[in-house]
Amino acid sequence: MAAWTRKNLLGLEDLSSGEIVTILDRAEAYLETARNPSARKTSLAGRVVVNLFFEASTRTRVSFGLAARRLGADVIDFAAGGSSVSKGESFVDTARNIEAFGIDLVVVRHAVPGTPHLLSQHLRAGVVNAGDGAHEHPTQGLLDLFTIRQRRGRVDGLTVCLLGDIAHSRVARSNIHGLVKLGAKVIVCGPPTLVPRQIADLGVEVAHDLDAVLPRCDVVNVLRIQFERQRGAFFPSIREYFHLYGMTRERLSRGRKGVLILAPGPINRGVELTPEVADGPESAIIDQVTNGLAVRMAVLDLCAGVPR
Amino acid sequence: MAAWTRKNLLGLEDLSSGEIVTILDRAEAYLETARNPSARKTSLAGRVVVNLFFEASTRTRVSFGLAARRLGADVIDFAAGGSSVSKGESFVDTARNIEAFGIDLVVVRHAVPGTPHLLSQHLRAGVVNAGDGAHEHPTQGLLDLFTIRQRRGRVDGLTVCLLGDIAHSRVARSNIHGLVKLGAKVIVCGPPTLVPRQIADLGVEVAHDLDAVLPRCDVVNVLRIQFERQRGAFFPSIREYFHLYGMTRERLSRGRKGVLILAPGPINRGVELTPEVADGPESAIIDQVTNGLAVRMAVLDLCAGVPR
Amino acid sequence: MAAWTRKNLLGLEDLSSGEIVTILDRAEAYLETARNPSARKTSLAGRVVVNLFFEASTRTRVSFGLAARRLGADVIDFAAGGSSVSKGESFVDTARNIEAFGIDLVVVRHAVPGTPHLLSQHLRAGVVNAGDGAHEHPTQGLLDLFTIRQRRGRVDGLTVCLLGDIAHSRVARSNIHGLVKLGAKVIVCGPPTLVPRQIADLGVEVAHDLDAVLPRCDVVNVLRIQFERQRGAFFPSIREYFHLYGMTRERLSRGRKGVLILAPGPINRGVELTPEVADGPESAIIDQVTNGLAVRMAVLDLCAGVPR
Repeated sequence: MAAWTRKNLLGLEDLSSGEIVTILDRAEAYLETARNPSARKTSLAGRVVVNLFFEASTRTRVSFGLAARRLGADVIDFAAGGSSVSKGESFVDTARNIEAFGIDLVVVRHAVPGTPHLLSQHLRAGVVNAGDGAHEHPTQGLLDLFTIRQRRGRVDGLTVCLLGDIAHSRVARSNIHGLVKLGAKVIVCGPPTLVPRQIADLGVEVAHDLDAVLPRCDVVNVLRIQFERQRGAFFPSIREYFHLYGMTRERLSRGRKGVLILAPGPINRGVELTPEVADGPESAIIDQVTNGLAVRMAVLDLCAGVPR
Repeated sequence: MAAWTRKNLLGLEDLSSGEIVTILDRAEAYLETARNPSARKTSLAGRVVVNLFFEASTRTRVSFGLAARRLGADVIDFAAGGSSVSKGESFVDTARNIEAFGIDLVVVRHAVPGTPHLLSQHLRAGVVNAGDGAHEHPTQGLLDLFTIRQRRGRVDGLTVCLLGDIAHSRVARSNIHGLVKLGAKVIVCGPPTLVPRQIADLGVEVAHDLDAVLPRCDVVNVLRIQFERQRGAFFPSIREYFHLYGMTRERLSRGRKGVLILAPGPINRGVELTPEVADGPESAIIDQVTNGLAVRMAVLDLCAGVPR
Repeated sequence: MAAWTRKNLLGLEDLSSGEIVTILDRAEAYLETARNPSARKTSLAGRVVVNLFFEASTRTRVSFGLAARRLGADVIDFAAGGSSVSKGESFVDTARNIEAFGIDLVVVRHAVPGTPHLLSQHLRAGVVNAGDGAHEHPTQGLLDLFTIRQRRGRVDGLTVCLLGDIAHSRVARSNIHGLVKLGAKVIVCGPPTLVPRQIADLGVEVAHDLDAVLPRCDVVNVLRIQFERQRGAFFPSIREYFHLYGMTRERLSRGRKGVLILAPGPINRGVELTPEVADGPESAIIDQVTNGLAVRMAVLDLCAGVPR
């Protein structure tokens, strides 16, 4: 277990495998508190965490907010809608102003890749990336790793398929970095229009035929088709996508016994997977939410503990 | 007083008169805390209550939020605007995901009648209906009952007129169920376009001439004209509506002495009632707000106390 | 130091110099708590403060919210978007309804000048003006005074220039009242279209040539060009405005040594001032944010302490 020395969590690309394991171990210690709110901790008492969300998100924002509060912190929600940003203020000025309120940690989501890095260069407060464009979403990657380790006992040596919209997915990128660092074999699979060729440079196998690769997979992480991010049509129809890549019980039955199904949510039932699969015994979708809370508690706690 | 065994409050139609009285008695015990925030209770300490509002509402949301906090609970506001629902997630998936955060109670408002029932079938958490379309708004019905009992000492044997837009009103429906169960005589009164004939099946008298029925009424509950719900014109003009159904001091003077005026709010002054009536001695409009807080404390406390 | 007897803070025009100094002294005592959230106070424990914002604002709303919470109060955010106001309810009815929740203080922002005064006539709760149209923004005025006193040791006898959009600025008006009462000489400077002639009646000098007055100024308060409030064009171009009134390092070098630069924020870098000036040693912009927190703690504490 590596000692934690970072006040920021910007992406899994930056972390060593030891640092990732440090987070996962800390999250494990917090899992009971994540499940049972009355088991509140006080390690962030007197600290202030800001949720600075420039993109709509309720789930991730609420998850970070709950995580912070369960550690005793105060939470400020600073949504960009109706804020000073619309009055022409620069992004960094907004963040600096918020910091002047005596803030310890800024959790930031922004449509522009690299925004959390930029912020971290201008703030004394710690910065946690809650999603920057199609770049990274490190706490989602960590909770996926956590869930795999929880269900399989390890990550090392497993084969994990990231399925679907790889091109628009920050979740894919954070998963790839984390999985590769922890020793998993990663296959990215989807229609050629949604899987960029260069992704192979990250050390993953690129596939387009799900039925061909499924028998080799221990885990399938079903990514959401990000209809709201796509400009133009990337596949002929939802029906055709579902036919080729939809995770059905029939298709599952041709995979490995006990394959683990993850999905970062929100899921489009009937597009990426059927309700039988989403709610079936292979699915860890609901556990992922609780695990996400534990992982975010761990990240906030570790980053806030580093002197600034 | 009936023992409380429900983890959900979906509508007054489901409750026995004994259960309704149980809530009203509990609310009475909380009235002082509703009036005086520093008299905080701890019966929900360590519990998490979610406000899951798919329809705009500040008043009801704030009332539930304050009620929960005054009992020591944590409150999460989960407004549908900008949430995962807009990304195509199903309603039940959203709720299940929220539940995975370790939630105890979900307070839900939704434009579709029956949504709280649907939720309650899929969640272990308790579900409290904060208004489902034109179906029910049980805590509003309860606070109206509470206010009548507070001002008149009883509900049984009183004649209560529900005035105005009955067709679009969930408040009317919850009032009817509650009043009839507690032994009141209910008259619904409004223009024929706003009073559905079948409402008589609920055991109420249907009237269209307010001046004819007013002398028999102990209580008039002035419902809001829901301009935002109406498609098309249900009466010739606001002036004509006001002439026939507007609650004026002159009209009041022809009613029973000391008739009690309720209004669920927000009120349209000069449409449903005049400022003199809204602010006069017969009006309990402001007390209703404080009573609503006490009633919601009682409901949350009772539902959270039932093992899941 | 004058004894504080007001439950409302509506504008600096109403206050005596002694009352202003009382607020500034109290704010000084709270400065450490403003900087360091863990040094929480309990003087408002059990009290409820409502943020009733009818105009978009994140910064001021968050500042008031944090100030209230650091004194132990509960805070309710009551934004007008999606609230009962859109259902046709009157402003005062909304406020009265909120008051019935057991509220102690209402912090109100509204586009209509005089709204806080109107509210204060109808509520028992205290009312704090967080900006009413182009009329007053007293806590901004107070934090500017506080910052000047902090950096210069006094306000009396200093020459302060309010620069830019005076016509649309409630900040200008509150500054003028406060500065004049505390004995400062005030120069308002900007293009003739943005500086109303009658402003001279408030006891200030009107100027249009910044370079001519700058050498006499100890403090320059750089007001924001309120693009969102202006209907029509008040100056030929941003480039021309910047040329004549933009605060640059070159221009600063021709002013008094150690002139103090204030800006209420959000700032438009490159319009009202350059980044070198905004981030330079003369600028107190970031300190103003922390000071604003201390000032708002003082105001809430003083107003809540007056019996109602």
